[in-house]
Amino acid sequence: MRQLCKGNVAVVKGAILAGCRAYYGYPITPASEIAEAAALYLPQVGGTFLQAESEVAAINMVYGAAAAGVRIMSASSGPGLSLMQEGISYLAGAELPGVIVDVVRGGPGLGNIAPEQSDYFAMVKGGGHGNYHNIVLAPASVQEMAELTGLAFELADKYRNPAIVLTDGFVGQMMEPLDLEYREATPPEKPWAVRGTAETRKNLVASIFLQPDELEGHQRNMEAKYYQAQQEEPRHELYETDGTEVLLVGYGIVSRVLRSTVEEARREGLRLGLFRPVTLWPFPSKALAEAAAGVEKVLVVELSNGQMVEDVRLALNGKVPVEFYGRTGGNVPSVEEINAELTSLASRQ
Amino acid sequence: MRQLCKGNVAVVKGAILAGCRAYYGYPITPASEIAEAAALYLPQVGGTFLQAESEVAAINMVYGAAAAGVRIMSASSGPGLSLMQEGISYLAGAELPGVIVDVVRGGPGLGNIAPEQSDYFAMVKGGGHGNYHNIVLAPASVQEMAELTGLAFELADKYRNPAIVLTDGFVGQMMEPLDLEYREATPPEKPWAVRGTAETRKNLVASIFLQPDELEGHQRNMEAKYYQAQQEEPRHELYETDGTEVLLVGYGIVSRVLRSTVEEARREGLRLGLFRPVTLWPFPSKALAEAAAGVEKVLVVELSNGQMVEDVRLALNGKVPVEFYGRTGGNVPSVEEINAELTSLASRQ
Amino acid sequence: MRQLCKGNVAVVKGAILAGCRAYYGYPITPASEIAEAAALYLPQVGGTFLQAESEVAAINMVYGAAAAGVRIMSASSGPGLSLMQEGISYLAGAELPGVIVDVVRGGPGLGNIAPEQSDYFAMVKGGGHGNYHNIVLAPASVQEMAELTGLAFELADKYRNPAIVLTDGFVGQMMEPLDLEYREATPPEKPWAVRGTAETRKNLVASIFLQPDELEGHQRNMEAKYYQAQQEEPRHELYETDGTEVLLVGYGIVSRVLRSTVEEARREGLRLGLFRPVTLWPFPSKALAEAAAGVEKVLVVELSNGQMVEDVRLALNGKVPVEFYGRTGGNVPSVEEINAELTSLASRQ
Amino acid sequence: MRQLCKGNVAVVKGAILAGCRAYYGYPITPASEIAEAAALYLPQVGGTFLQAESEVAAINMVYGAAAAGVRIMSASSGPGLSLMQEGISYLAGAELPGVIVDVVRGGPGLGNIAPEQSDYFAMVKGGGHGNYHNIVLAPASVQEMAELTGLAFELADKYRNPAIVLTDGFVGQMMEPLDLEYREATPPEKPWAVRGTAETRKNLVASIFLQPDELEGHQRNMEAKYYQAQQEEPRHELYETDGTEVLLVGYGIVSRVLRSTVEEARREGLRLGLFRPVTLWPFPSKALAEAAAGVEKVLVVELSNGQMVEDVRLALNGKVPVEFYGRTGGNVPSVEEINAELTSLASRQ
Repeated sequence: MRQLCKGNVAVVKGAILAGCRAYYGYPITPASEIAEAAALYLPQVGGTFLQAESEVAAINMVYGAAAAGVRIMSASSGPGLSLMQEGISYLAGAELPGVIVDVVRGGPGLGNIAPEQSDYFAMVKGGGHGNYHNIVLAPASVQEMAELTGLAFELADKYRNPAIVLTDGFVGQMMEPLDLEYREATPPEKPWAVRGTAETRKNLVASIFLQPDELEGHQRNMEAKYYQAQQEEPRHELYETDGTEVLLVGYGIVSRVLRSTVEEARREGLRLGLFRPVTLWPFPSKALAEAAAGVEKVLVVELSNGQMVEDVRLALNGKVPVEFYGRTGGNVPSVEEINAELTSLASRQ
Repeated sequence: MRQLCKGNVAVVKGAILAGCRAYYGYPITPASEIAEAAALYLPQVGGTFLQAESEVAAINMVYGAAAAGVRIMSASSGPGLSLMQEGISYLAGAELPGVIVDVVRGGPGLGNIAPEQSDYFAMVKGGGHGNYHNIVLAPASVQEMAELTGLAFELADKYRNPAIVLTDGFVGQMMEPLDLEYREATPPEKPWAVRGTAETRKNLVASIFLQPDELEGHQRNMEAKYYQAQQEEPRHELYETDGTEVLLVGYGIVSRVLRSTVEEARREGLRLGLFRPVTLWPFPSKALAEAAAGVEKVLVVELSNGQMVEDVRLALNGKVPVEFYGRTGGNVPSVEEINAELTSLASRQ
Repeated sequence: MRQLCKGNVAVVKGAILAGCRAYYGYPITPASEIAEAAALYLPQVGGTFLQAESEVAAINMVYGAAAAGVRIMSASSGPGLSLMQEGISYLAGAELPGVIVDVVRGGPGLGNIAPEQSDYFAMVKGGGHGNYHNIVLAPASVQEMAELTGLAFELADKYRNPAIVLTDGFVGQMMEPLDLEYREATPPEKPWAVRGTAETRKNLVASIFLQPDELEGHQRNMEAKYYQAQQEEPRHELYETDGTEVLLVGYGIVSRVLRSTVEEARREGLRLGLFRPVTLWPFPSKALAEAAAGVEKVLVVELSNGQMVEDVRLALNGKVPVEFYGRTGGNVPSVEEINAELTSLASRQ
Repeated sequence: MRQLCKGNVAVVKGAILAGCRAYYGYPITPASEIAEAAALYLPQVGGTFLQAESEVAAINMVYGAAAAGVRIMSASSGPGLSLMQEGISYLAGAELPGVIVDVVRGGPGLGNIAPEQSDYFAMVKGGGHGNYHNIVLAPASVQEMAELTGLAFELADKYRNPAIVLTDGFVGQMMEPLDLEYREATPPEKPWAVRGTAETRKNLVASIFLQPDELEGHQRNMEAKYYQAQQEEPRHELYETDGTEVLLVGYGIVSRVLRSTVEEARREGLRLGLFRPVTLWPFPSKALAEAAAGVEKVLVVELSNGQMVEDVRLALNGKVPVEFYGRTGGNVPSVEEINAELTSLASRQ
C-alpha cells in the first residue's frame, strides 16, 4: 500500500507491522508525533500506549515489558534520551530487546527543536554506564523510518539488546511516499521471558552479577554477541564510488545532501562518491575501508561538531586523510556549501 | 599536614580546600563515603550538604547552585551518573562549572560494586545529548584524589564546563598517606552568576537558543573554548620511556600495575615504558604520539572491554600498532598477567 | 459460582465483573494481592495492568484513564493513599469516576502492616485539598469486597466522583466463600469523555475554574450532587435493634465482633443491638438517629483513636450519650473485651 | 520595629525570629512569596533555603532536617499540601516537629488561585494516613502571620508534632503594619535528634513499630500528648459576647468581616457577638461552649462548603442550633451579605 506519510508516523507503522504491541513514553518536540501515532494505532491492534510520568519511568516500563517478551518501543529526543541512559544500560545488562527512537534536536541542554546529529556519541559510543553497545540504525527517508524500525525490532530480538533508531527532526517531520505491505509479524520465541505463567516462573531477568568472575563471564558473552553483530550486521549504501577521488561520508538527512552533491559533481566530471553508513553501530568499518581504498581524501559531513568522524578515522586508521565539515543548531549544509568546502580543502593541500 | 586517608574522603578534603561549599547527591556503593565525608565536613566550613530525592534531583540542584556561582560537587557511581546525563548536558549547555565524581563500579545495569573503568565512553565521549565535552580527570592515588578534585574545580571554573573526576572503587577505597596544606581557596569572580541580588538581576543562565544561527554561534563559542582546553590542559605522566620498545598505556589504578610491570621489566633489561593519561579529556594525544614515536607497539590496558583504546588509536592514527588487553567485573590484571599478554603478543607477530 | 476466595482477590473479581478494564498501582502490604490479581485477570479480559513508578504516578494514570471513560481502579494502603491525595482531589474537581481501594494498615508514618481503621478521617473527611467528598464504602466480608467494589464503580459513574473501598488487612486477607454470577457489565455512556476521537474532540476534562464565580458555581453543582447522594445512597445494616438499650456501632471487621457480642448478649437477655454503616460517606445519619432513638447509650468501636465516632455524634447531635472504645496497632477487640467495656460503662453512670 | 509587611513575608520573619534555619519547598501561587522571602532571608542568618524537586521531596527533606533537630519550615498551597500528606503523617508518626504553612487557594483539583478555607478538613481532620492530629493555627492578620508562625515552632517542639499555619491568599497577600522586636530564639534541647555526632549515634528517629502492642503503645503515648494539648493549647478570641443572641463563628480572614458585622450590629443595638478560633486543632471547644451558653443561635461562616462547622456542632452537641453560611471560589461574604443571611435565618424560625 502506497501512502503519503510523515517520518515520525512511519516509525509507528513500521513498528506495528514488526509486531510491536506496547509503547511507553513521554512527549517531546520533535518526536511527539511518534507518541501521537502510537496512541492512535496501538489500541487498534490490541496494544498498549501509555504516557509515563517521565522518561525515567518510561524506560523502566520498557524494561518491564521487554522482560515479559513483548515487542516494545519508546521514543524521545535528546534530553529524554539522556534521562533514559540508566534504563538503556539496564536493558543491555539484562540482555533485553527494546527499540528506542531518538529524533535528535539541537543541544546540549535545552538547545532548540531544530534538527541535529549531535547525539551520535551519546547513542553510539557512550551514554549509560558499563560495557555495552547499542545497535544504532540511521534512516534517511520516510520509507526507511518504517523499514529500519522494523529491522531494529529484529536485531533487538536477535541480539537481545537495545536498538536505537537515530534520526532527526528533518526526517521525522518530512512527508514522503511510503510503501508498506501487510505481513504477519512473527516475533521469535522468547523462552527466557517472565510472563507470570507457571512455565516461566523459573526465569530470571536481571543484570546483577555479584562476583567479579561472574560479571566478567557475562560481559565476555556479551562481547561474543557484539562480535557476531560486527560480522553480520553492518549495513551501508554506496553511490558512485567508481574511481572516486573524494569520498563523502554522511548519514541520515546529510546523506541526501551529499548525494545531490555527488550527482551534480559527476555531471561536471568531478569524481566524488558517497558512502552512507546505515548502521552506526556496528559501524561498517570494513566496507568503508574498501570504499576509501585509493581515494585521495575523505570528507565527513555531520550536523554536529564532529562525532561520527572518529569512527571514520578509526576505520581508515591513517590510510586516507579524513576531513570534517559540520553545521549545527538546525542549519543543514547546502550542496553549494559542500562544494565550497571541497574547493577550500583542495586549495589547502 | 600528612595523614592516612581513604581515597573517597580525600576527594572531599580536596574539594573543600578548593572552596567547594555545597554537595548534592544520592548515595551509592562504592561512592558513598564521599557523601558521608561531605555531610561531615561541609557544615564545618559553613557549607551545605543535601541528600536529594534522586540523582536526577541532585544534578539539577548542582545546576542551580552552580548558576549562583558556588563551587559545587556531586558524586555517584555508574547508574547514578547515567541518571545525571541530562543534567550534565544542561550544565555544559548553560556553561556552568560543576564537579562530578564517578567512582566506577561494574556494569552495565546493576552489575556489581567491584571496580571497573567501563564508564570511560559515558564520561569522555558520550553521555548526555548534544555537542559538548566533559573535562575528565583520572587520579591514580589518594593524593591525586584530593589534588585532581581541586584541579577539577579550577578547570570547571576556567572553562565554565562540567568536570568529571573518573575513578574507581580501588582508588576510592584505598588508604594512603595524604599531604595537604591549608590554603585559602580563591575561586574566581563570576560576574555571570545569578545571586538573587540587584546587580545580578540582569544575568541569565540558560541553555536555550531557539534560532539555528544563535545555537550554532553558541556551539562555535563552546568549540573555541574546547580547542583552548585541548591546547592547554592535557596532562600525562611518563615512566621509563627511553628507548622503549613496547609502550604500555593505562590510567587510574591500572597505571599502578603497569608501573610495576615496567619496573620489573626494566630490571630484567626489557624496554617497556608507561604512558599514563591524567586528563582523559582533553586526551593527551600529542604527548602520546611523541612518546610512541619509534616504539614497536603500544599495549593499552583497561578495566573495560576497550574504550580508551579508541582515543589511543585516534592519537596514533595508524603509525604504531595498538593492542588491547582488558579485564572486567572487578578483576584487575596482575603484573604476571600483563607479562603473559606481552609474551603472547610477541609470539603472534 | 461459589468459590473460596481471599478478600483482596474478591475486590478484583468484583471490579472485572463491574466492567473495570484498567488498573494502575504500586504494590504495598497488605494490599499487594489486589495488584497481583489485577495483573493476572485484567489481561484475560483485554484489560490493562500497569505497575507505575509511584503512587503519585498511578493516581495520575487513573485520572487519565478515567478521563477517557474507562472503568478504572487503583489500590494501596495508608502511605500510598496519602501520596494519592492530590490526585484524588483532582479526580473530584474534574468530576471523574475512579475506584480506589484502601486496605488500611497501622499508622501513622511507616507504622506496621497489621489492620487498623485509622484512615477514616483521611478518606471520609479530609485528605486532598478543596471542597469535595469521596464516596466511601466499607465491606465486612469477602462477599462484600466483591459486591461493594462493584457498587463503587456504579456510584463513581453515577456521581462522576472518586469512590473509595475502605477496608483493612483482616478483610483483605481472609478467605471466605464468594458467590459471583457472571453478568455483562454495562457501564453508562460517558459523552463527556475524551477518547481521542473526532466526536470527543470538543470535550474538556479539567478542574481549573479561574474566576471566583465560575469556581463557586462549579462547587455549587458538586454540592448539589453530594446532596443527592446523601438522600439516595446511605446504606447500613441493623441487627437486633428491637428494644435496644445499648446500641453498638462499628463498620468493617469490627462489625463482625460486635455482631457476636450482640448475639451472645441477647442469648443472656441483654438488650444490645448493632448498627453497621455500610457507606461511610454519605454517612447513614438519618437511619442511625432512628435506630438510636430511645436507646440509653451508644458505644462506637473502631480500630482507631476515635474517628467515625465524630460522625456518630454529629448524627445524634446530643440526643443520646455516645461512648467510644478503640484498639489500634493491629489489635482487634474480642467479645469479652467489649463486654468488659460495657460493664465498665454501666458502672460509671 | 514597626514596618509595613506582606502576610507571606511576615511568616518568614516570624519563623526566623523563632529560630527557623532551614526551608525546603516548591513554589505555588499564592504561597510563593514565602519561598522568595525564605530564599532571601535564611542565608543572611546562616540558614538553608532549598527548592526541592517536588513537594514530595520537600516534605521528606523537612523530615530529615527535623530529625537532625533543626527548626524547619515548608509552605505551599492546596495541591502541594496534598502531596505532602504522606510526609506529614511520617513526621507525626516519628514525633518530629516541623512547621508547614498552607496558604489555601480555591479547589478541589487545580481550582484557582483565589483564597478559600477549603483545606480545613485536610489539615484539621484528615490528610495523611493513621491516627494523628496536626496542630493547626489560623492567623487573621499580618501581625499574627508572624506571631502564630513563631508559636507554631514552639508548639511543634513542645509536642514533637507537625504544626500547620492555615491561612489563605487574602491574609498572605495583604500589607499591614508589623511590629517585631528582635529576640534571641532559644529552641529547646533535642536530645533525641540524630546529628551525626558520637553522642547522638544511639538515637533512632522512626515511625515503624512492627508489633501490634508496640504500635498501640506508641499511639497511646501520642494520645496522651494530644490530650495535654487539648487541655493547654486551645486559643480563641472573643468580641462583644455580652448578652449575645446570635454568636458568629469564623476564623482567619472571615473573622475580620464578622467583627465588622458585629460592630455595625452593636451600633444598631443588635446583640451579635464573635467567637474566633485561633487554634483549629486543638479546637477551643470548651471556650466555645461557654461563649455559646445562652445564645439563641450560632452562625458559622467559612470560605468553604462547611467544614469547621462540624467542630462547632461537636463542641455544642445539640445545645444550640448551629447554622452555616459559606462562600467559595475566592468570593468573600460582605457585611451586608452576613446581615442578609441573619435576617433570612430569623425569618425562617
